[in-house]
Amino acid sequence: MIDLAREICEKNPEVFIGIGDDAAVVKLGEKDFLAVTTDMLIEDIHFTSKNPPGKLGKKVVVINLSDIAAMGANPMGLVYSLGIPKSKDVEYVSELLKGMNSAAQKYGTSIVGGDLNEGKEIIISGTAFGRSEEDELLLRSGAKPGDIIGITGELGNAAAAVKALTKGIPLEDKGQLEESFLEPTARVKEGRLLSKSGKVTSAIDISDGLATTLWQISRASEVGIVVDFEKIPISEATEAFAKEEDVNLDDLVLFGGEDFELLFTVDSEAWEDLKDSFRKLDTKISKIGKIQSEKGVYLHRGENLEKFPDRGYEHFRK
Amino acid sequence: MIDLAREICEKNPEVFIGIGDDAAVVKLGEKDFLAVTTDMLIEDIHFTSKNPPGKLGKKVVVINLSDIAAMGANPMGLVYSLGIPKSKDVEYVSELLKGMNSAAQKYGTSIVGGDLNEGKEIIISGTAFGRSEEDELLLRSGAKPGDIIGITGELGNAAAAVKALTKGIPLEDKGQLEESFLEPTARVKEGRLLSKSGKVTSAIDISDGLATTLWQISRASEVGIVVDFEKIPISEATEAFAKEEDVNLDDLVLFGGEDFELLFTVDSEAWEDLKDSFRKLDTKISKIGKIQSEKGVYLHRGENLEKFPDRGYEHFRK
Repeated sequence: MIDLAREICEKNPEVFIGIGDDAAVVKLGEKDFLAVTTDMLIEDIHFTSKNPPGKLGKKVVVINLSDIAAMGANPMGLVYSLGIPKSKDVEYVSELLKGMNSAAQKYGTSIVGGDLNEGKEIIISGTAFGRSEEDELLLRSGAKPGDIIGITGELGNAAAAVKALTKGIPLEDKGQLEESFLEPTARVKEGRLLSKSGKVTSAIDISDGLATTLWQISRASEVGIVVDFEKIPISEATEAFAKEEDVNLDDLVLFGGEDFELLFTVDSEAWEDLKDSFRKLDTKISKIGKIQSEKGVYLHRGENLEKFPDRGYEHFRK
Repeated sequence: MIDLAREICEKNPEVFIGIGDDAAVVKLGEKDFLAVTTDMLIEDIHFTSKNPPGKLGKKVVVINLSDIAAMGANPMGLVYSLGIPKSKDVEYVSELLKGMNSAAQKYGTSIVGGDLNEGKEIIISGTAFGRSEEDELLLRSGAKPGDIIGITGELGNAAAAVKALTKGIPLEDKGQLEESFLEPTARVKEGRLLSKSGKVTSAIDISDGLATTLWQISRASEVGIVVDFEKIPISEATEAFAKEEDVNLDDLVLFGGEDFELLFTVDSEAWEDLKDSFRKLDTKISKIGKIQSEKGVYLHRGENLEKFPDRGYEHFRK
């Protein structure tokens, strides 16, 4: 479908990156860029009416800022469009807006405008925009053979939470799973750090799942990737959940989505310095693999080298 | 509801105009501004599944660019979020995107990114952004006593079309009514002309209806307004429709919405020059009233001076 949009939508000369990266990028000046991204949450598709409105408001901000972060841009603001059923009162909208506002403030930006409509169900569409100076843009297309593949945080928590909810398993006693799903974090500071390092060759938001994300980097940069399964950071909560509930850990970690972490590629000599800088931010980064010139995405597990299937979040949801 | 959003959403120092004008405005540089606006169309609220997708695509672009035009800004691009039911095929989405693309191209801009979701009904949310140099921003708050109130195009066509549709009256033989409603025009060139004239003190998109719009200018600029009913430009098609179908002309022209015309206030000495410039664009402008220092919005009709009720589109829809 993205291919369809890319085919139909013609580009202006001012458009630097059109459809196909985490955010679109438009030139403001010779070395000054504007990144814009949009993401929608629809009731009963992405959440249920049981979700507290304040957390929904936060989430729509986070999913949009995560794309801005993946471009290495500095958020400048967000606008939203709401569809709200008549059955919801002013209190509901107020809680939603408060959630959006507090999340925007947390990331040093603000909600600058919006549009309210009557809807049959709850619809929240957000658009975030940010700015990137000079040559600091992080695209999907710059990975080079020899680069290290790094990732922020831990994978699988949000997918485990989704699995628990669909199976009717209460989340309260599952450690950080619920929080990862309902109150995710956008890696805005981390994106800026990667961007300012000058050594990061590509970056992407991992919300569609690790497998899909790796294939996207591989295709956009025209390189191959080998990932070491043992090095993928998995939280204790996700490992325990998979064991206790007899859920396939691969599905959670490799193919699950909704983890708003950043995956990036970096010159191998710069890895230790980058790790030091992240220590100061108190954000964990892990080296999970390497870029190679031979195409394809491979997973090293024990003695085996498997071809990493090109299926992700969408597959997982079925 | 806008007041609620304004109350809750804190402003960053970079936000020049927050919630409450046609678009939000963020500072890019000392004299360089970014205008951003968002507007959503929802199936069975704003349109029906019978509407051709190509025209819907065009419309979502026009309603957003109309707000950018009302700020006097130059469009830079649009992003969209779609909610599409499983029952719709690729052809449907393709026609929608083609409509968006052709409308964007018509106004010299482009669709730069998007997001596709499964939805229970068709949801189209658009966000447009544009740029305004130096002191060319057109706000709602600059009208001065003595200024002339001008308006582009003609009023009532879209409201007449909506009325016809709700009454089950076929539109085919109703002249320009159908086109005004299904294929409206965004006054982008006109907005730039107003902005570059240096003589226009305020501007606003009239899509919420004339009455609401006049009150918005009156409140934002802290001035009063007198409008002459005889001077309001009404198309022959709308007048004929009102007469033939026994529909109240006031409801269509004064309180109806969806006409994407610009209302503006201008220094009275600059009116004739402005009119000449508009003649070159082949866009009609009409002088419909004057700004005065005494507060309130009044309508001169025949011998009478009525207080213009502060009710608009929302009222009209009930």
